[in-house]
Amino acid sequence: MYVILVYDCGEKRVNKMRKLCRRYLHWIQNSVFEGEISEVKLKELLLEADQFIDKAYDSIIVFKSREQKWLDKQIVGQEKNDLDNFI
Amino acid sequence: MYVILVYDCGEKRVNKMRKLCRRYLHWIQNSVFEGEISEVKLKELLLEADQFIDKAYDSIIVFKSREQKWLDKQIVGQEKNDLDNFI
Repeated sequence: MYVILVYDCGEKRVNKMRKLCRRYLHWIQNSVFEGEISEVKLKELLLEADQFIDKAYDSIIVFKSREQKWLDKQIVGQEKNDLDNFI
Repeated sequence: MYVILVYDCGEKRVNKMRKLCRRYLHWIQNSVFEGEISEVKLKELLLEADQFIDKAYDSIIVFKSREQKWLDKQIVGQEKNDLDNFI
């Protein structure tokens, strides 16, 4: 399936979260990732996040679509994922 | 149609962008909005944003789905949109 994952974490956990998401998905903006992922791998990602996020404060939202073609993507301004490899 | 809009704007433009998005969509996290919107209204929103964003720096990504039911939403941690009315 295709997912869009957005997170909002406290500053101390942001780097860990970003690194974790990068192992499974593609960074597209700020705290937004997207990509093809299996249900099992997504569970793995969320379980791992569960070990360090502060659930009273942090938030992860995952939008899941069975197929990417059901989601159109429109970009205005900078397409930042080109920087992915440099950060 | 149903959209998820994520933006990454320079600090000076963030408030303006947030206020603009709020007129059309529901805030769900950080710089993430969602909601039902017509193609015309979305164009209106993006045209308005176009007038103040810095396209060399800022970025707006809109994911569009014909129907909300094609997108599953999973939330881990805080569901922050409850605060919408207070900020």
